[in-house]
Amino acid sequence: MAPEKGEWRLIDRIRARTRLDPAAVPIGPGDDMALVDLGESGCLITTDTLLEGTHFDLAEATPRQVGYKALAVSLSDAAAMAAEPVCAVAWVGLPETRDMAFAEDLCLGLSDAAARFACPVVGGDVTSWRHPLAIGTSLVARPSGVVPVRRSGARPGDLLLVTGTLGGSVLGRHLDFVPRVKEARLLARAAALHAMIDLSDGLSTDLGHVARESGVAAEIEAAAIPVSADAEQLAEIDGRSPLDHALNDGEDFELLLAVGPEDGRRLIRAGLLGDLRLTCIGRITEGAGVTIIGVGGHRRPLEPRGYEHFRGDGGASA
Amino acid sequence: MAPEKGEWRLIDRIRARTRLDPAAVPIGPGDDMALVDLGESGCLITTDTLLEGTHFDLAEATPRQVGYKALAVSLSDAAAMAAEPVCAVAWVGLPETRDMAFAEDLCLGLSDAAARFACPVVGGDVTSWRHPLAIGTSLVARPSGVVPVRRSGARPGDLLLVTGTLGGSVLGRHLDFVPRVKEARLLARAAALHAMIDLSDGLSTDLGHVARESGVAAEIEAAAIPVSADAEQLAEIDGRSPLDHALNDGEDFELLLAVGPEDGRRLIRAGLLGDLRLTCIGRITEGAGVTIIGVGGHRRPLEPRGYEHFRGDGGASA
Repeated sequence: MAPEKGEWRLIDRIRARTRLDPAAVPIGPGDDMALVDLGESGCLITTDTLLEGTHFDLAEATPRQVGYKALAVSLSDAAAMAAEPVCAVAWVGLPETRDMAFAEDLCLGLSDAAARFACPVVGGDVTSWRHPLAIGTSLVARPSGVVPVRRSGARPGDLLLVTGTLGGSVLGRHLDFVPRVKEARLLARAAALHAMIDLSDGLSTDLGHVARESGVAAEIEAAAIPVSADAEQLAEIDGRSPLDHALNDGEDFELLLAVGPEDGRRLIRAGLLGDLRLTCIGRITEGAGVTIIGVGGHRRPLEPRGYEHFRGDGGASA
Repeated sequence: MAPEKGEWRLIDRIRARTRLDPAAVPIGPGDDMALVDLGESGCLITTDTLLEGTHFDLAEATPRQVGYKALAVSLSDAAAMAAEPVCAVAWVGLPETRDMAFAEDLCLGLSDAAARFACPVVGGDVTSWRHPLAIGTSLVARPSGVVPVRRSGARPGDLLLVTGTLGGSVLGRHLDFVPRVKEARLLARAAALHAMIDLSDGLSTDLGHVARESGVAAEIEAAAIPVSADAEQLAEIDGRSPLDHALNDGEDFELLLAVGPEDGRRLIRAGLLGDLRLTCIGRITEGAGVTIIGVGGHRRPLEPRGYEHFRGDGGASA
């Protein structure tokens, strides 16, 4: 039987078993991308998989959207490290029942994302089989003048900032989101970001990753969370609160960052991201775990309830 | 409906659509690995996917063997370019019916290959689903003092050399083969290899790739093909000839190379590969297509009958 959701952290097991030479692999499993030494330059790499029925539903998504999403989730990992995408490779396990036009549409979607983010797909592997669609990408990026931002650098006193609005991505945004590659690099050039992650599993889960990897606690203000219109709409349908959606839905692919208080205030004032919101939602403190502070000041632990599949906590994954 | 086996070359379609900057991507789709510029050094990348029921059968293979094979096929791509493996990432679509021990055995197999070829797995993505096992790797390599050997450099007059023996890998060798990473680099340091490919799809198919990509013809001598003991054994079972197995079975993961005649003879005499055979099986000529010359001197076209899935002709795949 498969372990309970989130219970089993494969990545912890891999990390415990693998002795990586820190000179050759400065950043190993457990961050948004791994960093390896490659001659005179560093090379970042990540891989992501989308499985039909888990990450998309072909009754709802076109193959072109699925292709786009497949590369966009890896681009979002590059954003989380403030890295510059270089190239990607893609693989497809293609249901035998699908025709050539379907496969071409997948490729078109990959090409859409590749062109938009100047990250060419330089190779691939397509195999047909009798089962649902599986598609994945691996992406290579480089630091290009910005030190890769890890999950593990948050410090007590840091402010927590988030881009955009959260929740309800299942209404469609999970298929056409914009990986925050450009925004991440703007922010990282403007201030020393201490930690960053892309919100793939949901704020409650991904903030937990940052706190745990950094060895700190985090507290966020419920009233400060930028709740999306999609979250409001979904709440009307299913009776869960908009805040619950914003905290736990996942696949927002926005950025969560921890930055010193002066820098944080400066970044928000500077308006670097144009129309895209940048919101302070809380702070890093000493300790462990994540706390949410309600409108009336009531504090409660925020459990990770985000989208976790079975995949551990994401080692070099979206 | 899916197109006929081998009929549809996805990679040709991708290549036709994608305009890659040759300065940024010196080697694009269609070779064993792509080569991208990365600051001061070149970076090679490939991706491979193994699907349950197509590339392995869990009634026959242990999960540890499947994990080993998943990385070994990408290592074989690095061998085909005479490149030095740097690191890999892995992803798994894990059947919900499988337990933690199964997943750990997959990881152990990946680790076996990683340790043996000094190619650490630096990240991964594991997701459970209700369908059969899908596992893949992407591998980064670097030239490290050897110019990457392409499929496209064969010239009329070149000799065709092959390592090891061919055919019948389905009897077990397809699960525990040794990617010829070390051997490829020894050969490439000893002589200017004009073209190289790893025999994943079968000699008849893979030699066709070399001939087509190089714009030349190839002819091989039936009597010279190094037929494996496995091919002999399988022939006794299924009534096909041992030669047929050696030409078409695929998943040998040996190297096929084209090299100038002087260099070719010198390489064979030099015995660089120790106990591993290095056999001259034919030559490159002007023209197009592949010809096989029978024992009595009869010439016939050698059609690609190797293992081709639906995947086009392999762009950056095994």
